[in-house]
Amino acid sequence: MPTLILVRHGQSEWNLANRFTGWWDVDVTEKGVEEARAAGRLLKGKGVMPTLAFTSVQKRAIVTLHLALEECERLWIPEVKDWRLNERHYGGLTGLNKQETRDKHGDEQVHIWRRSFDVPPPPLEKGSTFDLSDDPRYAGIDVPDTESLKLTIERVLPYWESTILPELEKGETVIISAHGNSLRALVKHLSNISDDEITGLEIPTGQPIIYQFDDAMKPGERYYLKDS
Amino acid sequence: MPTLILVRHGQSEWNLANRFTGWWDVDVTEKGVEEARAAGRLLKGKGVMPTLAFTSVQKRAIVTLHLALEECERLWIPEVKDWRLNERHYGGLTGLNKQETRDKHGDEQVHIWRRSFDVPPPPLEKGSTFDLSDDPRYAGIDVPDTESLKLTIERVLPYWESTILPELEKGETVIISAHGNSLRALVKHLSNISDDEITGLEIPTGQPIIYQFDDAMKPGERYYLKDS
Repeated sequence: MPTLILVRHGQSEWNLANRFTGWWDVDVTEKGVEEARAAGRLLKGKGVMPTLAFTSVQKRAIVTLHLALEECERLWIPEVKDWRLNERHYGGLTGLNKQETRDKHGDEQVHIWRRSFDVPPPPLEKGSTFDLSDDPRYAGIDVPDTESLKLTIERVLPYWESTILPELEKGETVIISAHGNSLRALVKHLSNISDDEITGLEIPTGQPIIYQFDDAMKPGERYYLKDS
Repeated sequence: MPTLILVRHGQSEWNLANRFTGWWDVDVTEKGVEEARAAGRLLKGKGVMPTLAFTSVQKRAIVTLHLALEECERLWIPEVKDWRLNERHYGGLTGLNKQETRDKHGDEQVHIWRRSFDVPPPPLEKGSTFDLSDDPRYAGIDVPDTESLKLTIERVLPYWESTILPELEKGETVIISAHGNSLRALVKHLSNISDDEITGLEIPTGQPIIYQFDDAMKPGERYYLKDS
């Protein structure tokens, strides 16, 4: 049965520092390393062994993938990295402390930026510290200056349809190591969650989420591997 | 200018224990981790930034690659794993301590097995501890039961020609993280070294070797990046 494993990267330095991160490339913390390893041990313990891996081009997701694969003795499987699995781009909020942003713009405005479906944060200023448009990893890519969840979905889903789903159809056990919002995009699609509800759905770090697909490639109920 | 970076994995547990390893999947030691990281720092320091990575399906080469790429901030580049970059298969010597093997079979015989160009060690017995023919990573592959350097070359070079060289031709800076004998195969070909000489050529662990190619894809002299 085709099986999909979703893993959100382990705790990052800016999860810990409570800063908006988006496309900025921060590392995982020691706790994040441990979360990633625990995810791999859980996969091995439950006998859910990935045969093909996808991840974003962001270090925290790549490192999480490598640590998890090392623990389940699957470092040798093919691995594909794509920017379309990146975190939502947080625009001009990138790098700001969440509490300071609330103090400055008010709780309500920050809540809208964080939790509305289609209102993107203000754009990141061209040439600012966190502008990645000259980063070689994004050569040839039109780096966004901000994204709503809706805009994130609009790049995640075509990639899912064109590249990941066909691999599942071949019978692969696919692991995707990615981010809160790129995973929300997938969960919204696979579990048919409304625009209003999806923005409040928390994806915990380092906790494998499983979908199994039937012969018609219809996904079953999602569940946490730890609960199975 | 197309650039090729060859890196032999950092010290492995069985390099340290002086055991014949071949296709057996041992980890790198703490020293090996440090060698791999140093290789990545050297790449970054010299500004030789890989854009595409190849490695074997063996943990010691994959881990070395990941550590080196992390240090030079290139974890995000595409990475291709293939068994044809694996270490030479050591046949029935796999797992044996080198000194014990010399005591048992004599210095001369062991020297022949280790250093002759085309005499393979005795085959690994089917079903023995070190038989990998049922390992899922080799599904669909006719796992050898022993290999000489000549046999190793016969699987490395077709892969080089079909898959790696075309990427260099496109202008990629290719890093290959592999093993003493799969790298000897490439160095023999690129530096035009005789059958007799190649078996004595030592490839040091964690030390990036560079080839630069001209417009006609003729490789220049090889050199250690540390000496440049």
